Amino acid sequence: MVSVNISVVDHVLLTTLDLGGTFVFAISGAVAAVKHRLDAFGIMVLAFAAGNVGGITRDVLIGATPPAAIDHLSYLGVSVLAGFIVFFWDALVTRLSNPVLWFDAVGLAFFAVAGAQKALLFGLNPVMAALLGMLTGIGGGMLRDLLVLQIPTVLRADLYALAALAGAAIVVAGDALHVQPIATTIVGGVVCFLLRYMAIRHGWHLPSAHSSGGE
Amino acid sequence: MVSVNISVVDHVLLTTLDLGGTFVFAISGAVAAVKHRLDAFGIMVLAFAAGNVGGITRDVLIGATPPAAIDHLSYLGVSVLAGFIVFFWDALVTRLSNPVLWFDAVGLAFFAVAGAQKALLFGLNPVMAALLGMLTGIGGGMLRDLLVLQIPTVLRADLYALAALAGAAIVVAGDALHVQPIATTIVGGVVCFLLRYMAIRHGWHLPSAHSSGGE
Amino acid sequence: MVSVNISVVDHVLLTTLDLGGTFVFAISGAVAAVKHRLDAFGIMVLAFAAGNVGGITRDVLIGATPPAAIDHLSYLGVSVLAGFIVFFWDALVTRLSNPVLWFDAVGLAFFAVAGAQKALLFGLNPVMAALLGMLTGIGGGMLRDLLVLQIPTVLRADLYALAALAGAAIVVAGDALHVQPIATTIVGGVVCFLLRYMAIRHGWHLPSAHSSGGE
Repeated sequence: MVSVNISVVDHVLLTTLDLGGTFVFAISGAVAAVKHRLDAFGIMVLAFAAGNVGGITRDVLIGATPPAAIDHLSYLGVSVLAGFIVFFWDALVTRLSNPVLWFDAVGLAFFAVAGAQKALLFGLNPVMAALLGMLTGIGGGMLRDLLVLQIPTVLRADLYALAALAGAAIVVAGDALHVQPIATTIVGGVVCFLLRYMAIRHGWHLPSAHSSGGE
Repeated sequence: MVSVNISVVDHVLLTTLDLGGTFVFAISGAVAAVKHRLDAFGIMVLAFAAGNVGGITRDVLIGATPPAAIDHLSYLGVSVLAGFIVFFWDALVTRLSNPVLWFDAVGLAFFAVAGAQKALLFGLNPVMAALLGMLTGIGGGMLRDLLVLQIPTVLRADLYALAALAGAAIVVAGDALHVQPIATTIVGGVVCFLLRYMAIRHGWHLPSAHSSGGE
Repeated sequence: MVSVNISVVDHVLLTTLDLGGTFVFAISGAVAAVKHRLDAFGIMVLAFAAGNVGGITRDVLIGATPPAAIDHLSYLGVSVLAGFIVFFWDALVTRLSNPVLWFDAVGLAFFAVAGAQKALLFGLNPVMAALLGMLTGIGGGMLRDLLVLQIPTVLRADLYALAALAGAAIVVAGDALHVQPIATTIVGGVVCFLLRYMAIRHGWHLPSAHSSGGE
């Protein structure tokens, strides 16, 4: 639909990030499915949904149809792989104190920077590219949580959407300043993860509307 | 993708309605977020979701990608503005007895007529244009309610989807009869709001399947 | 957008399947709405959502916009018809021990094969065509369940997504082997329904991650 020229390096970088994010989010989806005692196929469905819905939404919105996750089998492959890993070694995965949260944090970092990169490649303006990066990051997790009837982490967890936005904004700013994409991608991803780390471990958070009150 | 010729007047009218609807729905989303004690960024996310998902869905369905809410920063701007207003003056907003319901009713009226206008401009048949107007009106509120785990207002509230459909149908009928768009837009929006007003204040409602029974 | 040559037979087959699936899923949506005591219009909204969201999602993903359910009034027609039937004769429909489940099973069979057929016509690779068939089957029911705040049947019910995938895979395999579409469509649909039948009636199910444990 839209003719986009992507250099080989950009393409490899983008695909790696996208697949990496898909894998860890798929893990988080599969773990949530196991927690809610879904059967083997329910685990696969939730793994695929968590791993791919953010990217699919982004692709539909920027007009990149069919979305990469539908067009290339690799996305399905890593999602199913993640599902199998959780299915057979869930004792290992769930030994982490809150595995959904940690895998989610890594996936958020991958997707935030990948989403911003792809939106820039499709010519969106910088502000919207950063927001689409954020959306790519939060979309899959939102659906994962809704499907098992929980208020999405993004709406309750501290510094969640903001962490994704910060990571995406670094990528967008780097692009405007003509910095190497690989450098800004790494910095953006690390900043996003660190913000979530500080929120989960050390309770960093944003004020809520009633925070000035005496509650 | 689709080449659409829109007169300047139509364009201004459509944009005004769309942004107006976005603003009041964003208010309703932000108020729902405050009610559920989400943090500052959760408020922004819910404001944006409530204010823009109906229009984004409509645009994706009629092939108008990237959707206006992604392509123009003004939609983001009014959503964030609505979020800030609720964040800083929520005492003022929540003094209304049921603020989500009232802002929702105004947003429904704006979006129902705007959605129908835009669908007509993109050449949809009249019946579907009216239904897309309705969908634009109910989409954002549905996601807002789902995200905080409530059965969507549209499915429970009296005369909700019907009010949106009535407003949209007036716009579509006016178009078929070559009436001035501004006139039918105002009439359609007022009718939609009044139907909701009568439902909220005076309990107007449709029968349910068991209403003839003795319950 | 995409120029697709479809023979008349293919077109009639596809439309019949799509409308058939829409009808039975719409029945399941309307019954769920009645169960949750929604009003007449809520019934129509849930009937339309259950009957059409799977197909609309498929069409958006393969770039067939505007989706058939938006472009042709017949989809709206059968959805509204299903809503009226349930509204006026719900005593009849709800006499079945679990009507949502049974209508859902039939709709799943229709949509799984129709979705796979359409994805093949639009040139998707066989694996993704089978998965899109599955998605078409599960999409409408997922939204129906979410809208009334239940964990989607697809995630909890036994052999649900797998039944849809089996039906879709038969259609795709038949296409690769140049078998008559009508034959594989019937076989695929019947296999999908039978798998669900065995799951509902005789408790066939897949293992869950903890099934080997002593719980």
